[in-house]
Amino acid sequence: MFGSILESVKEKAPLIHCITNYVTVNDCANLLLACGASPIMADEPEEAEEITAICGGLTLNLGTLNRHTIPAMLAAGRRANRMGRPVVLDPVGAGASRLRTETALRLLDEVRFSVIRGNASEIKTLASGSGTTRGVDADVADRVTEQTLDRTVAFAKALSARTGAVIAVTGAIDVVADAHRAFCVYNGHPMMSAVTGTGCQLSVMTAAYAAANQERVLEAAAAAVCAMGVCGERAFDRLTERDGNASYRNYIIDAVYRLTPEELDRWASYEVR
Amino acid sequence: MFGSILESVKEKAPLIHCITNYVTVNDCANLLLACGASPIMADEPEEAEEITAICGGLTLNLGTLNRHTIPAMLAAGRRANRMGRPVVLDPVGAGASRLRTETALRLLDEVRFSVIRGNASEIKTLASGSGTTRGVDADVADRVTEQTLDRTVAFAKALSARTGAVIAVTGAIDVVADAHRAFCVYNGHPMMSAVTGTGCQLSVMTAAYAAANQERVLEAAAAAVCAMGVCGERAFDRLTERDGNASYRNYIIDAVYRLTPEELDRWASYEVR
Amino acid sequence: MFGSILESVKEKAPLIHCITNYVTVNDCANLLLACGASPIMADEPEEAEEITAICGGLTLNLGTLNRHTIPAMLAAGRRANRMGRPVVLDPVGAGASRLRTETALRLLDEVRFSVIRGNASEIKTLASGSGTTRGVDADVADRVTEQTLDRTVAFAKALSARTGAVIAVTGAIDVVADAHRAFCVYNGHPMMSAVTGTGCQLSVMTAAYAAANQERVLEAAAAAVCAMGVCGERAFDRLTERDGNASYRNYIIDAVYRLTPEELDRWASYEVR
Repeated sequence: MFGSILESVKEKAPLIHCITNYVTVNDCANLLLACGASPIMADEPEEAEEITAICGGLTLNLGTLNRHTIPAMLAAGRRANRMGRPVVLDPVGAGASRLRTETALRLLDEVRFSVIRGNASEIKTLASGSGTTRGVDADVADRVTEQTLDRTVAFAKALSARTGAVIAVTGAIDVVADAHRAFCVYNGHPMMSAVTGTGCQLSVMTAAYAAANQERVLEAAAAAVCAMGVCGERAFDRLTERDGNASYRNYIIDAVYRLTPEELDRWASYEVR
Repeated sequence: MFGSILESVKEKAPLIHCITNYVTVNDCANLLLACGASPIMADEPEEAEEITAICGGLTLNLGTLNRHTIPAMLAAGRRANRMGRPVVLDPVGAGASRLRTETALRLLDEVRFSVIRGNASEIKTLASGSGTTRGVDADVADRVTEQTLDRTVAFAKALSARTGAVIAVTGAIDVVADAHRAFCVYNGHPMMSAVTGTGCQLSVMTAAYAAANQERVLEAAAAAVCAMGVCGERAFDRLTERDGNASYRNYIIDAVYRLTPEELDRWASYEVR
Repeated sequence: MFGSILESVKEKAPLIHCITNYVTVNDCANLLLACGASPIMADEPEEAEEITAICGGLTLNLGTLNRHTIPAMLAAGRRANRMGRPVVLDPVGAGASRLRTETALRLLDEVRFSVIRGNASEIKTLASGSGTTRGVDADVADRVTEQTLDRTVAFAKALSARTGAVIAVTGAIDVVADAHRAFCVYNGHPMMSAVTGTGCQLSVMTAAYAAANQERVLEAAAAAVCAMGVCGERAFDRLTERDGNASYRNYIIDAVYRLTPEELDRWASYEVR
């Protein structure tokens, strides 16, 4: 099934509007091109809404949040809502500062998200209104492991029921859930956390997958999470003994570029709970 | 002839002031270093003009246009004009939002450009005052092909006559024209469109080539377009079956770094109309 | 000794707050991950101080200085001072514009820096209050060579005595000095100047090394300078005849990722004066 979701991305080549941080923006753009979509970045409030209007999907990422772009996020989000286009929230660093936490909560209030993707600390911050995010990484106490998986599944389903958004909590195991069903994804490699922005990249890819598969957003989000993980595995296999996280970064995007629908079906590793 | 233009870049090592988008800015900086020039990025209105004053050339790129940097673009452009230094306009996304279209037109009004480089949709937007740019890619209807080449040549010459700028319309075939002569460039590879910012990179390279060859700006712009295309071809030849657009991105800049004047002369593929 | 400094970075994995330019920010983030630290970028005045409060160190980089982020730099710097956390200044382009020079001097006035790292022109600008920086590269007259080494050592020691900061003047030979002792570092490769941001990367690495070794900041800064140079050498050895500055960029970060404490001890090349 995931293969057909990717096929649909390649066929429809959705244009994705990204209001995102300046740290990982280039990788996000190349990632979108790699998976068959197209990027456009525009965070000026004067044009954000107009740009959203020509796009198939939208990502809002709080990575280097700037007071001036918050109105752009709100306007773009509302416009996408009115047009029925999927909107993905990546609440980078929610819990690390009041501005990020409050902005994430305000966005949740004023925009209907199709998918919210973050690490466990960020998502818990959204759920509770406060948190202990360690910068942009999940707090150790929050990590998703076999031991905490059942709890995380229940938590994600409940948050999805409350917000109406598919919830993607990514970590060693990834949980992608709506109110009724959760995909637990086992793809990925620990070294991905040594590359800045693999989470941001996954978020824009999720927007592309959702934009091309609006009738099955839960599956689209789970497929994107699997695809990113599969590519992290494939890229890791390619590393030589002199390669480090910079080459790994390139190899991951390369793997996304090369990934076929058949391969995604073959290598996706998940269970439904 | 193009070889001697590149030689001149390497000899003079011009410093290029870039007011450009934050998506592709790192690649633009490395591209300038690769071709023998030096980059400086500065978009704060308070210092833009002063930075232009120590530079050999200027690029204005609308990729992530921000209301606050428009005054910086205007001040830098006028200063470069007063100093007789080449200014390149890259109207990324003109036609995709009113802000971009109007800013591009205002820049055209208040700054004399040496070269304007964009895809067919963006350049048509400048010519007509409105357009149908699909995000940052050319609309299908606007693509330059063998069928539309004569029309594009005539269009570019006319726009050059009107604006005084060399017009570079890039696509499958590139047209670089002043009022009297057009270079039709056949170098390049379709996969270049899977790398974000190859257009932006070409624009800053054009500024470097023009800065080092002020007495022959048309030829300098055509040489830059050929050089970028040649490097896209060379880089493509290097791809392995696991490489994708991320490695391709690196290989293109690598190829620019390695390109010699002799190679540019040998591999440049163009005709003059 | 330098090996144990790196070991300490890997053990403590300090979180480094970077207020830095948007040109090289992605490489700075990956560099920090490569050396065992973690990055967080946040330049919005509303949250800067709060982000600093959860971090082990701070870097302020003037590369694409923006009027709006100066208050963020000041607030973050003062907070780090109050918390006793190391702060590194990278005065990119000081001397190239009044805004940059004045901001650098103001920061020097209001924030206590642990380390100041720049090229000779930038550091001289700080010392004298004015300068002749050629964009972001050192003026030829300012370059550190065998001939000017004694003078540079004396200059760096004097500036350190005046500011209380370790002074790192980087170039063909690097000088890292406090008021009493200077490390002259011979590692590195000339091709590093063909990669944008190797200086910025060194600055964030210096912050990580200092954050994990607060009781020996001079040695930590010297170790970081050696480490970056060693990685530049190792990466150069890896270049094939088709590789250029883009692959070199990746290989340098890869080398930082692979560098072990033992290797740093073995390959560090310096003398103390």
